[in-house]
Amino acid sequence: VILAELDRAFSPQRLKGKRVLLSAGPTREAIDAARFLSNPSSGRMGYALAAAARQLGAEVTLVSGPTALATPYGVTRVDVVSAAQMHREVMARAASVDVAMMVAAVADWRPAHPSDKKVPKSQMAATLELERNPDILADLGERYGHGRQGDGDERRPLVVGFAAESHDVIERARSKCARKGAHAIVANRIGGPTSTFGAESATVHLLAGEDEPQTFSGTKTEVARALWEALAGHLQR
Amino acid sequence: VILAELDRAFSPQRLKGKRVLLSAGPTREAIDAARFLSNPSSGRMGYALAAAARQLGAEVTLVSGPTALATPYGVTRVDVVSAAQMHREVMARAASVDVAMMVAAVADWRPAHPSDKKVPKSQMAATLELERNPDILADLGERYGHGRQGDGDERRPLVVGFAAESHDVIERARSKCARKGAHAIVANRIGGPTSTFGAESATVHLLAGEDEPQTFSGTKTEVARALWEALAGHLQR
Repeated sequence: VILAELDRAFSPQRLKGKRVLLSAGPTREAIDAARFLSNPSSGRMGYALAAAARQLGAEVTLVSGPTALATPYGVTRVDVVSAAQMHREVMARAASVDVAMMVAAVADWRPAHPSDKKVPKSQMAATLELERNPDILADLGERYGHGRQGDGDERRPLVVGFAAESHDVIERARSKCARKGAHAIVANRIGGPTSTFGAESATVHLLAGEDEPQTFSGTKTEVARALWEALAGHLQR
Repeated sequence: VILAELDRAFSPQRLKGKRVLLSAGPTREAIDAARFLSNPSSGRMGYALAAAARQLGAEVTLVSGPTALATPYGVTRVDVVSAAQMHREVMARAASVDVAMMVAAVADWRPAHPSDKKVPKSQMAATLELERNPDILADLGERYGHGRQGDGDERRPLVVGFAAESHDVIERARSKCARKGAHAIVANRIGGPTSTFGAESATVHLLAGEDEPQTFSGTKTEVARALWEALAGHLQR
């Protein structure tokens, strides 16, 4: 706490007065009482971004899927489990923030017929029917994103997404940014030696509009700080 | 470390000279590079049992799925991800131990056609084909369990399973014990207010042979200690 406060006191308050909404971690999509679909997100990148935004002076709300991480000092945390819950909590808060940065690894499919009980192994079908989850980033993009220019003085958050890709990282991330209507997207590679799932360090690429990608490497704390420094320029409005 | 050593020094060494093999945590069954099937096991019960066995004098090997827990002091840990890996690591070690206690929440199904890459959402099918995983407890039971009496001086581990049930806990656990050929089974309830997934405390029931169930409640550390005290009697042979 003392270190966090000292760090805050001596940090340039690039995000002072800004309200930041972050999502982090995986979501879990219940199959039954003892089985779910999920993904290997540790939540570290989102938590590092929440801590860094707070240190730079922002008021930070973190909508978090299940993680083993402690809430960063000074950050408001809202716990969720499923993508549907995360969608609800994010959309309820997005209109009143300056930045909505979606770092969570949201499951895009969920079991179509979840059970409250644990289904005996012998009664499980060998096929699991799935249905699509809401697309949080696309819904933010549609409501507040780059396609919604010139509404005058209406307050709109900067919409920033994350893209975890196993191949063709930059191209796929740029395509995702356009498709979702986000203002910017942070791309990272999953799988292979530079994987970021669960790791302490990361290499990410910031794609904002037509600009050349900016690349940041280091610990997730260092990368988080650098991303906010780069994004702060987009908030001077 | 000092506390663990002191605790060990002052504990009655009920398991001195015994070799204990434990499994703990969930397994993860890959759908692709960024999606898996899993379950909400935190690994706490298995880790508590590993720590308690070591304190009671045993030599402990812990085959662990992905958890956020530190390895208990003095315990040998073998990390695995999938049920197939856990099956391999457990079966390779079971012949040379006195107790094989399977605490892990092993996924009983895995995706039939996993992909190394992350499959784009738009290319995912709305049904996921599954295939059965190996049944580690049943394989231990078949090879070493209560059906295999009277082989004379052949060394066989005591096979102990866990049963997480959402309803009819005792009956279903007793049926599981018989079906798997285990010597004993520890039953616990999942879901509801006494759920043990991820919790710090637990209520469990030990079912061994035709004996009346013994019930233990408390922190997972207390429950682990009590379970070993109760099981130690079955090892005096």
